[in-house]
Amino acid sequence: MIIDKLYKAVEEKGHVCVGLDTDLDYIPKQFSDKFNSIEDKLFNFNKEIIDATEDVASCFKVQIAYYESYGIQGLLAYKRTLEYLREKNNIIIADVKRGDIAKTAEMYAKAHFTGEFESDFMTINPYMGMDSIEPFMPYLKNNEKGLFVLVRTSNKGASDFETIQNKEGKFVHDIVGEKIESLGKDAMGECGYSAIGGVIGCTEAEDGIRIRKELKNTFFLIPGYGAQGGGAKEAAIYLKDGNGGVVNSSRGILLAYKKVENGEENFALHARNEAIEMRDAIRKCSKERI
Amino acid sequence: MIIDKLYKAVEEKGHVCVGLDTDLDYIPKQFSDKFNSIEDKLFNFNKEIIDATEDVASCFKVQIAYYESYGIQGLLAYKRTLEYLREKNNIIIADVKRGDIAKTAEMYAKAHFTGEFESDFMTINPYMGMDSIEPFMPYLKNNEKGLFVLVRTSNKGASDFETIQNKEGKFVHDIVGEKIESLGKDAMGECGYSAIGGVIGCTEAEDGIRIRKELKNTFFLIPGYGAQGGGAKEAAIYLKDGNGGVVNSSRGILLAYKKVENGEENFALHARNEAIEMRDAIRKCSKERI
Repeated sequence: MIIDKLYKAVEEKGHVCVGLDTDLDYIPKQFSDKFNSIEDKLFNFNKEIIDATEDVASCFKVQIAYYESYGIQGLLAYKRTLEYLREKNNIIIADVKRGDIAKTAEMYAKAHFTGEFESDFMTINPYMGMDSIEPFMPYLKNNEKGLFVLVRTSNKGASDFETIQNKEGKFVHDIVGEKIESLGKDAMGECGYSAIGGVIGCTEAEDGIRIRKELKNTFFLIPGYGAQGGGAKEAAIYLKDGNGGVVNSSRGILLAYKKVENGEENFALHARNEAIEMRDAIRKCSKERI
Repeated sequence: MIIDKLYKAVEEKGHVCVGLDTDLDYIPKQFSDKFNSIEDKLFNFNKEIIDATEDVASCFKVQIAYYESYGIQGLLAYKRTLEYLREKNNIIIADVKRGDIAKTAEMYAKAHFTGEFESDFMTINPYMGMDSIEPFMPYLKNNEKGLFVLVRTSNKGASDFETIQNKEGKFVHDIVGEKIESLGKDAMGECGYSAIGGVIGCTEAEDGIRIRKELKNTFFLIPGYGAQGGGAKEAAIYLKDGNGGVVNSSRGILLAYKKVENGEENFALHARNEAIEMRDAIRKCSKERI
C-alpha cells in the first residue's frame, strides 16, 4: 500500500515533506526571467526544488490553491509538476482539501487519483461527514492511494469549531479522529498505519501527545513547521517510534534563499540545505523522545 | 452588493438555481457526437442548458469537481462556461467548497473571484474556522462578491460532525451559523441579507424552521432538491417572505429529458420545462407559508 511506501521513505530520507506552494513572487527574478509563460516559470522553479531536495525529502505536498489562482496556465504547471514528481518516483500529496458527497466525491477521487492530476494522497475536509470520505475507499484498496483528513489544525480559527466539546467533553476533532482511525482499519498497511492519515497541526503540544496516543493506526501529515510557528520539538511529539508522520514546510524551504545574501542565484541549494537542517532537527528530537 | 442582485433575480425569476454538474455521460449521444473534444462537448451542452433556462432561473451553480475530473480539458470547459454565464449577465455560484487559511485562502479567493475562473459566489467549507472565511471579506466589500458557507447539509453523514452538540445543547452547525450570521453584519446588502450566505440542505424540516428563524440575515443556498430527496415543500421552509434563498437542482434539470420518450433530441427544452415546474412548485409552497 502507498502508506508502506511513505513509511519506508521516512525511514530512508527522514520526515520532511517539501511543500510546493509556489507563488510567482517566490521565484527569484533572474530565474523567472528565463521563461516566458507563467506555466514555465512555475514548473521550472518546482523542478529545480524537486531535483535539489528529493533525496532528503520523503514526499512533496503540492498546494493546488496557488496554481488555481493562475487559471489554466497555473493548472498546466500543476499537472506538469505532478507528472515530473511521478516520473522520478516521488510520493505526492495533493493538498486540495476537497470535501463533498456522493457522485461529487467520486468525481474528486477521479480528478486527483487518476488522469492528468494523479497524486498518491489527497487531503480531505471532513465537515460533511463520513460519506464525504467513504467514496474514496475503493481507490485506497485497489489503486494504492491514500488520504490525509483534516483533524486538528494549528491555526487560530481551529478553536472555532474543531475544539467544540460535546456533552462527554470530547472535541469535534477527537470524534473526527476516532472515525478515521476506525475507517482506516479497512485499509491497513504492513507498516502498522492505515492509508487514511490525519492532518494534525504542530503547535499544540498538549493535544499532540494525547492525539498521538489515541490514533494508533493513523499516520500524520503535520503542517505548520517554520512559517506557522511550529518547530522540530513540537513536530516530534506527533511521531511514534521515529516514524508515523511527515512534517511539511513550504515557504521555509522555498524561500530559504532569502535568508542568505545574494541567495537568489543558488535558491535550490539553499532550499536543500534548509530541508537537510529540518530533517536533522526532527530526527534528533524524535530520537530523544523514543 | 451581489446579494441584492441575487435577491432581485429571485423576485423576478423565482428560486431555481440550475446546477451545471455536467458529466459526459449526461450528454445525449446525438448531441455529444457533434463535437470532438471533451471541452467542446461539456461547454456546448452547458450552453444549451443556459440558453434554455436563464429566464426561469435566478442563478447557476457550477460544480467544479465534474470539470476537474476531466483534467485540463474539463477546466477549459469550466472556464468557458463561467465566461458564457458572465457574458449573459447570469449570477454564478462556483461550487468549489474550498476551505483553507491565510495565504492559501487568499489564493482561493484570487482563483475564484478574479481571472479566468471568476464567479460571483463561491461555496466554502468552514471546518478550519473563521480564519478560513475572513480572507474573503475584502472581495465581499470591494468586489461585489459573495460566499455560501456550508452550515447544515442534508446527506446522511451530516449527523457525524455537523450535529454534534456542545454542552449547552447547541449543534456544531448552529455555531457555524451564528458565526457567519455575525460576520455577515459587515457585508449587508440593501435587501436585508448579507453577502455571506449559508448552504442548508432541504430534507430536515424541523431543523429548517429553527435555522430560518435564527439566521435572519443569512441567504440560503438549498441543495438536495429532487435527486437528494427534498421537494418544494421542504425547500419553502427555508425561505422567508417568499425570498431568502435559492434552491438547486442539478441532475433533476440536466437529465429531465430521460423522463420523456425520445427526449434526447430536445434535452434543453425538457430541462427548461423541469425548471419551470420546479419554480412554480416552490413559489406556490412559499406563498402558502407567508
